[in-house]
Amino acid sequence: MKKYQEMSQEELRAEYNAVYAQYQKYCAQGLSLDMSRGKPSAAQLELSMPMLDVLHGQHDMRAEGGVDVRNYGQLDGIPEVKRIFSELLDVAPENIMVGANSSLNLMFDCVCWAESLGIIGCTPWAKLDKVKFLCPVPGYDRHFAITELFGIEMIPIQMGSNGPDMEEVRRYVENDPAVKGIWCVPKYSNPTGITYSDDTVRAFAALKPAAKDFRIYWDNAYCVHHLTDTPDVLLNIFDACREYKSEDMVYEFTSTSKISFSGAGIAVIAASDANMADLKKKRTIQTIGPNKVVQLMHARYFHDAAGIAAHMEKHRALLAPKFEAVLSALDAELAPLGIASYSRPNGGYFISFDTLSGCASRVGELCKKAGVVLTTVGATFPYGKDPQDTNIRIAPSFPPIEELRAAVAVFCTSVRLASLEKLMAA
Amino acid sequence: MKKYQEMSQEELRAEYNAVYAQYQKYCAQGLSLDMSRGKPSAAQLELSMPMLDVLHGQHDMRAEGGVDVRNYGQLDGIPEVKRIFSELLDVAPENIMVGANSSLNLMFDCVCWAESLGIIGCTPWAKLDKVKFLCPVPGYDRHFAITELFGIEMIPIQMGSNGPDMEEVRRYVENDPAVKGIWCVPKYSNPTGITYSDDTVRAFAALKPAAKDFRIYWDNAYCVHHLTDTPDVLLNIFDACREYKSEDMVYEFTSTSKISFSGAGIAVIAASDANMADLKKKRTIQTIGPNKVVQLMHARYFHDAAGIAAHMEKHRALLAPKFEAVLSALDAELAPLGIASYSRPNGGYFISFDTLSGCASRVGELCKKAGVVLTTVGATFPYGKDPQDTNIRIAPSFPPIEELRAAVAVFCTSVRLASLEKLMAA
Repeated sequence: MKKYQEMSQEELRAEYNAVYAQYQKYCAQGLSLDMSRGKPSAAQLELSMPMLDVLHGQHDMRAEGGVDVRNYGQLDGIPEVKRIFSELLDVAPENIMVGANSSLNLMFDCVCWAESLGIIGCTPWAKLDKVKFLCPVPGYDRHFAITELFGIEMIPIQMGSNGPDMEEVRRYVENDPAVKGIWCVPKYSNPTGITYSDDTVRAFAALKPAAKDFRIYWDNAYCVHHLTDTPDVLLNIFDACREYKSEDMVYEFTSTSKISFSGAGIAVIAASDANMADLKKKRTIQTIGPNKVVQLMHARYFHDAAGIAAHMEKHRALLAPKFEAVLSALDAELAPLGIASYSRPNGGYFISFDTLSGCASRVGELCKKAGVVLTTVGATFPYGKDPQDTNIRIAPSFPPIEELRAAVAVFCTSVRLASLEKLMAA
Repeated sequence: MKKYQEMSQEELRAEYNAVYAQYQKYCAQGLSLDMSRGKPSAAQLELSMPMLDVLHGQHDMRAEGGVDVRNYGQLDGIPEVKRIFSELLDVAPENIMVGANSSLNLMFDCVCWAESLGIIGCTPWAKLDKVKFLCPVPGYDRHFAITELFGIEMIPIQMGSNGPDMEEVRRYVENDPAVKGIWCVPKYSNPTGITYSDDTVRAFAALKPAAKDFRIYWDNAYCVHHLTDTPDVLLNIFDACREYKSEDMVYEFTSTSKISFSGAGIAVIAASDANMADLKKKRTIQTIGPNKVVQLMHARYFHDAAGIAAHMEKHRALLAPKFEAVLSALDAELAPLGIASYSRPNGGYFISFDTLSGCASRVGELCKKAGVVLTTVGATFPYGKDPQDTNIRIAPSFPPIEELRAAVAVFCTSVRLASLEKLMAA
């Protein structure tokens, strides 16, 4: 195949006619396919069904330490669940607090409490004229939605293969006291799939923020979500911080949303002693305690980090072929044409795809018209605006593999068409 | 028995010696009894154990409408659960949003969102110099803890047998734009046990607040928690509001915390169309959705309001004898002495007890020394300060009945002793 950018106008026209005919065929099929959200598939959810049975006929409803999980209390979670997350994150159990089913909810609450109550005695952000967050891009749309809701100015920071541009991060964080946070998905990043290098993590730990209440919102959502035999390894940020005595700068989050049930798992926040005391001061007024029956169910089903690792192998067996199906189609259909670049992640839930400049929205439109829903183009940038209009987040997890193959075929054709339109107009 | 206030100093001295001897005997027993919190007993929690079995071996995990409860989504709850609460509260399903396990969490979030984001376009409270809440007293300590955390000034409003003093409420709400809310437990009130009269509810509905973002925080925690064959009936506040077109003034809350499991139930907020749209704007950024597996469990176990009513009869069978045990002891030991007044509720979780003026803290001390924990005296007032030092909240639900009897005996002796101390010092 010849690269599109090397084709003459005549060749482009011929190619366009062929691709357009193919696209028309797809449109005629009345497809309805969805590659938009990082949702586990029904088959993945089935993997955890035995978890619902562990309390069947069970009359021992006491957690370690004797608390009756059905009653009120145990604000920070039952010991056996804290221990599991302690293993997963390599953080002491006393630095972990268990929430409800959603780590996003914990992140939202941290921002909302900072806005209304302030972090450890600092002025509540709602009283300040200007609050800013750094947003590595492309990134996770639901992070950006939180900061947008609170009217926090979002500053995009370019992601590279080792993580965010740390020169830029340092420049903002160390000079501007209005910069109060940065959103990070440090492992199998959403959407680029990369894992922050040790140097990047150390550069985070070494930051000397201008604002005392600057926090790194470390969303370690995919900590055990590997797709290969050679998983990425993320340096423990709290270990890195210890050297700089900067542990108070980090809020770490994770959940079992993509381990057990995405709607009915357990989420946690990990933080330094000082942050934990501050967070608990608020949390203890917010609720008498989280759902501990769900916690006990998880603890009795998974037991420990090894139990979770074994379980994640089953997820991988379902997920890896889907990633492979998408990537091999992209490799065959698009790579030789010089019109696309994309990630090849070792874990996580996404493939990050870049079109030629200015083509991403058009690809979204074409896919939609042909019955394939993508993550809203632009969503991976603050305010939904991708300045280059190139990035598309592909989420292969949810559709059955045959549907995924059909969707990717439509996608590839749409990318070719949009690229041809651009090149022909040039 | 002679009334204490009619006794001579000599009679008081003799009585004191006798009562003190009895008190010493209790102290020597090394008791450890707890009447402090409105926690269901282990026996009550056992009532809902079959709920954990309804999903056993279950592979139909779809709610009405087809959503897979294990996956993300369904922000406002599954239809069958919304329908149950719709029946319980007599509010349309579309005006109900289901949260996690804690209605307190929903109340906290409403206040926190008002502080940081504002209610329907109003200025966020955190930006205002002064925000005030009305607090009917005695009331619920955890309500007061929320407003205290946010630095909201709390104004006590006297509770009567029909509810709060509505003249006072109207005076504040209609004249002071800094008054943004009032905490209410309208049915089987915490702790007085009374239910607001129809006139009181109508007086609420008729309020013309000075502040556009004034809201009534209507914590209908005990809506189906009857203790007698002649339960109280609470007028539906939304019905009352319809006449005045004041539906936007109300946030109503309830939960299954004292129906199924206190730590692992379901909580909801009910609100007008305009409020619901405003709340969902925030909630949809806070989370992708609540735990719907827990919801499905509740729906398949309870089915409907009738199922819940039948279940509440079982709770009543366990609770009513405990209330009876406390009340008959108070009737026998204290009523004839003219040193106490207390409620005789038709439902809910508490008996509200008033000592002679200035004696409540001393009763708390005496009980503690004898091994009986009461709800912290003063907790039923804002800032933990009961100006008359009279009110004690008795929570009979948690201890087994023999322990409860022992605790009440110590309590009665402590009340006699504290009263005698006061009268002898007079």
